[in-house]
Amino acid sequence: MIPDEKFIKNPNIPGPTKEEIRCLVMCKSQVRPDDIVVDIGSGTGGLTVEFAKRAKMVYTVDKNPEAIEITKSNLEIHEVKNKVQIIQDTAPEALFDIPNFDILMIGGSSGELPSIIKEGYKKLKDGGRILITSILIETRAEAVKTLLSFGLTPDVVDVSISKGRIMERGTMMIANNPITIISATKLK
Amino acid sequence: MIPDEKFIKNPNIPGPTKEEIRCLVMCKSQVRPDDIVVDIGSGTGGLTVEFAKRAKMVYTVDKNPEAIEITKSNLEIHEVKNKVQIIQDTAPEALFDIPNFDILMIGGSSGELPSIIKEGYKKLKDGGRILITSILIETRAEAVKTLLSFGLTPDVVDVSISKGRIMERGTMMIANNPITIISATKLK
Amino acid sequence: MIPDEKFIKNPNIPGPTKEEIRCLVMCKSQVRPDDIVVDIGSGTGGLTVEFAKRAKMVYTVDKNPEAIEITKSNLEIHEVKNKVQIIQDTAPEALFDIPNFDILMIGGSSGELPSIIKEGYKKLKDGGRILITSILIETRAEAVKTLLSFGLTPDVVDVSISKGRIMERGTMMIANNPITIISATKLK
Amino acid sequence: MIPDEKFIKNPNIPGPTKEEIRCLVMCKSQVRPDDIVVDIGSGTGGLTVEFAKRAKMVYTVDKNPEAIEITKSNLEIHEVKNKVQIIQDTAPEALFDIPNFDILMIGGSSGELPSIIKEGYKKLKDGGRILITSILIETRAEAVKTLLSFGLTPDVVDVSISKGRIMERGTMMIANNPITIISATKLK
Repeated sequence: MIPDEKFIKNPNIPGPTKEEIRCLVMCKSQVRPDDIVVDIGSGTGGLTVEFAKRAKMVYTVDKNPEAIEITKSNLEIHEVKNKVQIIQDTAPEALFDIPNFDILMIGGSSGELPSIIKEGYKKLKDGGRILITSILIETRAEAVKTLLSFGLTPDVVDVSISKGRIMERGTMMIANNPITIISATKLK
Repeated sequence: MIPDEKFIKNPNIPGPTKEEIRCLVMCKSQVRPDDIVVDIGSGTGGLTVEFAKRAKMVYTVDKNPEAIEITKSNLEIHEVKNKVQIIQDTAPEALFDIPNFDILMIGGSSGELPSIIKEGYKKLKDGGRILITSILIETRAEAVKTLLSFGLTPDVVDVSISKGRIMERGTMMIANNPITIISATKLK
Repeated sequence: MIPDEKFIKNPNIPGPTKEEIRCLVMCKSQVRPDDIVVDIGSGTGGLTVEFAKRAKMVYTVDKNPEAIEITKSNLEIHEVKNKVQIIQDTAPEALFDIPNFDILMIGGSSGELPSIIKEGYKKLKDGGRILITSILIETRAEAVKTLLSFGLTPDVVDVSISKGRIMERGTMMIANNPITIISATKLK
Repeated sequence: MIPDEKFIKNPNIPGPTKEEIRCLVMCKSQVRPDDIVVDIGSGTGGLTVEFAKRAKMVYTVDKNPEAIEITKSNLEIHEVKNKVQIIQDTAPEALFDIPNFDILMIGGSSGELPSIIKEGYKKLKDGGRILITSILIETRAEAVKTLLSFGLTPDVVDVSISKGRIMERGTMMIANNPITIISATKLK
């Protein structure tokens, strides 16, 4: 995984998604070299970069021009610009012009999670995966409910990570905020 | 419990111990109105204030003059000054002149945890409780080892608390750093 | 706090609420000797017993006859039977015949959380507290939403506790399932 | 990642290491197709299988014949038997006859962690990684101390995972026991 400090940051934009969470999202996504990925709510671009390093093509979507800018910078320094198409738009609208895909990653949904899942599900290939990362308790419940309504079986994982800060008097554990990764596979 | 924001703070001094941890320490201490309490490493004075509200008398110890000052201020605004004797000294030395007590609370030990427990154990009444709060992985292991060496059975509790921040778009969970509460009772 | 193992258990009935959670619920409830408490979904009776030890009177409600039986047994062995009125009924219906109260504790709601809060709010005295403990992600979101709809400000606390098992080769940390405590105070 | 239920288990043997932890260990190890890996304390063989799927060769060590048996079975059903050499022996002794390697994974150390790190460090290639997974508070402290004594900078990550169980009345979060992943890179 790329260390957190290797991403360019913008204080107005959330992210990058922390190293350990990027790692778990990559595992849960089962991303493969031939996969087409859509990343909704790219923020700083942390997950976009990681997907781009592993997939064939990533469509990354954010409505915020500042997020688009910082994502672009991170694609450049991590040398995956050529594998990513950047779309500045709202979701689910941005999904209308994207071809079918293998992985739908939703990191930010601006209150439109059910409609993003609904539109995304239409274009998700059989066997494809939907992943939602959530830091809000409302989004967790909504994601599970929406996935169940499509007959999918959500895998729900609450992740709490603390990292050691080595000091002279000992190793202090510093907590990251908890995050939930919700994922499901579209049946073939 | 006193809300965290009701304590005067000093950026150089750790604390106050968070509300939920103060609550758990009070429960684990089984503090009663007749108890004499010693609080080593008072810091901001959060636990000292809570013990003073429930016990007969608290001896609060810190080697740092800034900690002593901020503890004093918090004792005053929470109106428990008359139940607390403040001692600016290192530990275990500070324990030499304190009479026997019911509860030994160790929130900071400056690398002297084994000797503080050793000296404290001598003056701990039968049935008395020793409590250690720890944010360092080394202190946790040392606390367990030292308590076991006195034939005590440590109760070890790792506590991870996240608190909801209500925002327009939902409730975000913000993590406090994990803390371990280790406690033991001196057999009668 | 009463140790977990001091409660009689029934494998069909959830609980008792773990020691550390009972401790935090007592702190968050700010229970006082003159308080009238209503405990909805008593289960094993762990919280009912703790409230009865601190309050004037507890009305404890469960629809399940097995829960009522085990709660009764625990009230007896912890000698607080005379301070508790047991009601075998569903909620919110059980609230209709209870006089006004200071604390509404909801540990189980059988899908009726919004209506329990609605009916309970009517009978909650000014300055009274509502508390919800939740192990379901849906209940967390629903509790926050419902409390906000009454103009209340929910305090949301996710609690993850691990407890040390002392073995010959070291101290293994065993996780309890995470639980969320949501509470709010009715303005005077 | 291989789902937990796809491993053969033996109630006497710990493991398999849970899916999310295997995922994080793979990320932290930075394992590459040319790497030689040593896995000390293989238990059920979960990490051995994952490393074998990604590395050139794995030497897997356990002193317990039952662990060796179950590891063998898991290597077979996951079709990586040809990439793994199984060694039934204690550590650090087992390290004496193994050629230099890129990754040293220590999942069980039977109280010999410092000497395993010491002997392993000698055979670890420049740029190679040491990883320790720990469920004991004593091992965490010892791992950090030992790695620091070799001039290494430990990355310490406490991981708490809860997984959703979808039920009719909602999604209950079930906690896995916390585990700490400690890792370090040998400087070139």
